[in-house]
Order: sequence, then structure tokens, then C-alpha cells
Amino acid sequence: MKEQLRYGIVGSGALGGYYGAKLARSGADVHFLMRGDLDAVRRHGLTIRSKDGDFHLPQVNACGSAEEMGPCDVVLIALKTTSNAVLPTLIPPLLAPDTALLTLQNGLGNEELLARHFGARRVMGGLCFVCLNRTAPGVVEHYGHGTLSIGEFKGPPQDRTMRVVTDFQRAGIDAKAVQSLITERWRKLVWNIPFNGLGIAAAANVAQVLNDPHLQAAARLLMAEVIESAAKLGYAIRPEFIDYQIERSWPMGEYRSSSQIDYEAGREVEVESIWGEPLRQARSAGAKTPRLEFLHALLSHLAAIRKAP
Amino acid sequence: MKEQLRYGIVGSGALGGYYGAKLARSGADVHFLMRGDLDAVRRHGLTIRSKDGDFHLPQVNACGSAEEMGPCDVVLIALKTTSNAVLPTLIPPLLAPDTALLTLQNGLGNEELLARHFGARRVMGGLCFVCLNRTAPGVVEHYGHGTLSIGEFKGPPQDRTMRVVTDFQRAGIDAKAVQSLITERWRKLVWNIPFNGLGIAAAANVAQVLNDPHLQAAARLLMAEVIESAAKLGYAIRPEFIDYQIERSWPMGEYRSSSQIDYEAGREVEVESIWGEPLRQARSAGAKTPRLEFLHALLSHLAAIRKAP
Repeated sequence: MKEQLRYGIVGSGALGGYYGAKLARSGADVHFLMRGDLDAVRRHGLTIRSKDGDFHLPQVNACGSAEEMGPCDVVLIALKTTSNAVLPTLIPPLLAPDTALLTLQNGLGNEELLARHFGARRVMGGLCFVCLNRTAPGVVEHYGHGTLSIGEFKGPPQDRTMRVVTDFQRAGIDAKAVQSLITERWRKLVWNIPFNGLGIAAAANVAQVLNDPHLQAAARLLMAEVIESAAKLGYAIRPEFIDYQIERSWPMGEYRSSSQIDYEAGREVEVESIWGEPLRQARSAGAKTPRLEFLHALLSHLAAIRKAP
Repeated sequence: MKEQLRYGIVGSGALGGYYGAKLARSGADVHFLMRGDLDAVRRHGLTIRSKDGDFHLPQVNACGSAEEMGPCDVVLIALKTTSNAVLPTLIPPLLAPDTALLTLQNGLGNEELLARHFGARRVMGGLCFVCLNRTAPGVVEHYGHGTLSIGEFKGPPQDRTMRVVTDFQRAGIDAKAVQSLITERWRKLVWNIPFNGLGIAAAANVAQVLNDPHLQAAARLLMAEVIESAAKLGYAIRPEFIDYQIERSWPMGEYRSSSQIDYEAGREVEVESIWGEPLRQARSAGAKTPRLEFLHALLSHLAAIRKAP
């Protein structure tokens, strides 16, 4: 790879805007693919309002099409997974022979989709633990956290993994490489499946789930189903992880997951990547997941009727 | 028992008002215990608006207290189960040595509550299949159905069972005696647990449950859990009953269960009698009911936060 990596950001909402702006501020070569916010960002740049300090980039490389952006070394994919159907036609103009595709999206199935269309060799993934909101065109609020765990879709970290991690670290992001990306995805789902799910189906924030004995029991049983599913698929997570997840959730208080916020705001919910694909993989491995299956049925219906005009 | 039975109606909302008015119109000796609607009914009587023909009773026996009503031969209990805590103090003034207590309430646990306080010997139950709404003080709309299945809490029908059935039949109600009341309650729950539950947790009417493959599968799996629970408790329901319940639901179209209507109108939902008590009994019998347990956790939280001011 070259001295400096050329980054392309696909999906420049809150997530792509935040990480892209941090990279660009640190001197990285970053190009943003935008649609709705293009004019505003071309005129006013990108603004990040953060508890770690606000900053403004008056000029960024904002492109209106993948052709205009052209080949990149690393494509950061930060689209909502509900828009994944555009990727097969959106990505090709961004590809050089060694281009890496790094999906920062939620849940399962995103790496697989990219691998199917563009070859597993190109695919990397990142798990974001960050609270963001795009409050206006080109304006992102950062409420907290920001760690990023980056790994290869297949196999342990490579040189390119470490180069990307280093670029993020230079940009002030708490980034690290992970040995098994998909294990980490399942570990994240141990929390997201119950808490994001009960946030919608029971209209319960984190404190409400924890304080209601029936809901906390339901959350723990969902976690056990996720851990059993991961185990059957070959990703080992220790059962003590359930207690750990419950304990680490108490300080979150009345935190609402991004899915609950999206749902309550009438926006699309990533039902398939967070619940549907894990359920399909669990089934294919012969895991018993009655609660996950039931929750997925509720959420897919609730999301479908909420989306309707 | 005497020539003519003296009926007392406890809880004169839609259910008590409808069945009581039908009985009174047919010449039965009926006394209504009322609180909120007392003045209106004393002044204007009871009005039933029904597809079977409207009728108006300008004068009914409306009492403001159990003491004023005094001992009855048959007490029809038509309170919402969420008010069951008042029964132990409300009932005693209505009791003569042979008074029968006939609960028309939803779900499980109502006969047991009465038996605990007043002796199992007194207790009868009725299953109502009727669509009603109290639209104003003393005014009940009857949208359809109206059959009533009456049985003894313990054992097969007795003479008194047949006398009450006959009185209801004389009043134009499609009433019959059932051999095993509690089996019938479980059979009714095979429908109510999934359809009333998904009506709230998935905001889905009957047609939406049937048309969404995930929700219909969830409904069928819930039905199977209810049937397995009933079987473990000694109440046999054949597995073909699931297909039958699905088939008979198609003509209902966009019907919303009473629980869904109550929930969406911000009224109390009978969570414990329809889901909580069946779940407790299923557990005590060692039945596996992961979906019912999960659904109950969602509903009890949703109902609790909806009730909050």
C-alpha cells in the first residue's frame, strides 16, 4: 500500500460523518460520498459537536457520486443496513485491485454481503461503540464513547488492519484490532439483541429493563440464546458474560438504544441485521432460540407498520 | 332454590349491563350494583343498542352499595379482573347460605379467588363470546355474538347450573352448560393468549397476525404452549385445535381484541388473568412456555407504563 491511504466514506450520516471528520482533521486523505447533505457540506463543511471538544472542517472532499470519488484504498461503509441493497451497484467505481471494504455497520450479515459481491479477501469490519446524532446537514452531535474494534472478515489482523487502526488512533479514536471480528459481533449482539429489542417491543429503556424483574429475566434469557447460538457457530462466549453485561448496563441509566430512538422517531430500524440474520444463522446451526424468534416476529411487524405512511 | 332466582350484577359496565338488561327484560329478578353510572341509570334506565334490535329499560333495580342490594341467589361478577381486589369486601353482604357466585370474567384465577374467600361450593363460571362497548352511562352497544358457556368450578353441571342456563336462554342468550369449565377456559386462552397478546405487543389486528408469516408462526407456537400447559394440568385439548383456531380467525378480518382496544384507548389491560395466571399455572405443572413467559414480560411492562399518568 501507499504512504498515505485514500479513504472513501460511503454513507455520510452521523457515523460516517463523525469518523470521517476525525480522520480528515488528523490529516488523512478522506473523501465523503453524499447525497442529501452534499450541497450543505460543500458550502459549509462538516461540524462535529462533541463533549471531547467541538470542531469544524470548512472544506472537505464531498462527492456526489461513486464515479466522482473513484478508487480508494479503504472504503468505510457507514450506511444503515436497511439500505444495503444499493451496495452492489454503489461500490464498483471505488474499487482498485487492493481496495479494502471496511463495514462499520450494525449486526450480522454485512461482511457476508460484501464478500459475496466483491470477494472475502477485501472485507474488513469494525464495531463502533459510540453515541451520535446527525442534527442538521453536515452537523453531527457526539454524546459519548467512540471506541472502534477493527478486524478482518477472515482470519487474524493483517498489515492493512494495523495501518487502518493506526490512522484511527492518530485521529484521536480509541481504536484497536481484534483477533476474531465475528466473535466480537456476536459479543456485541449479546447486548443489542435484548436491549435494543426490548427498547422497541416493551418500550423500555435500559433502566426499565433492569428494574423490571420480568424484563431483566427476559433479557438474560435472550442473552443465553445468543451465546448458545454463537457457540454452535464456533464463536465461544463464556456464560459469565451475561452477568457482566447486566452489571455494565446499570450505569447507563435511562439510556435508549439507537434502535429504540430510531423507532420512536419513526425512522427505519435495522431489524434484519440485528435480529433477523442472527436468528437465521442460529437456526442453521441448530440452536434453540424461541425468544429471539418471537422477538424478531414482533419487531419485523412493528417496524413494517411504523414505516408505512 | 326458590321459584324465581334473585340475580345481583356486580360490575355493571358493558358486560354486566348487557347480560343483566337481557335477563331483566325477560322478567328475571335482577339487581344492578353500580357506582359511576348509578345516577344516570336511576334517572334514565338502561339502553342496549344491538344488531339484534335495540331496547330500553326505563326502570331497573340499581343499587349504590352491596348492603342496599342484599342477599341474592346468583351473583354475576362482571368486573374487570384488574379490580378483583375489591371482591373479598364487596361480596359478603350479597351472600345467603346457598348463594352462587358466577364469574363472567376473562382468563384464569377468578374462580380460584372466589373459592379461596367464599368456598369452592359457591363458585360457577361463564365464558362470554360477545363484542360490547359501554358508550355512555347506562348505554351499551352490542356489536355481535353473545354466546355464554356456563359451568361449575368443581365438577359437572348441577341443577342450579341448568336453572341459570335456562334463565339466560329465556332472555334470548345463546347459553349452554359445559362439562368442564376450566377446560373451556384453557380452550378460550388458546385464542386469547396469542391474539390479544400480539394485538398489544405487535400492534397487530387479527388479519395482520394471520397475514404476517412470522406473526402467524408465533401465534401457533404460543397456542402450542397453551395446549401443552393445559395438558400438563389435566385439561386435554387436541393439537388440531390450533389449525381450527387459525381457520376460524380468518373471517374476523381486522378485528381487534378487547385487550388491544383497551390498551390503545389507555385503559387497564387484564394482564394477570389472561397471561400471568396461565403462566404461573403452566410453570407449576412443569410446562415449557418460553414464548408465553416472554410475552407476559412485555405486556406487564407495556401495561404498567401505559397506566402511568
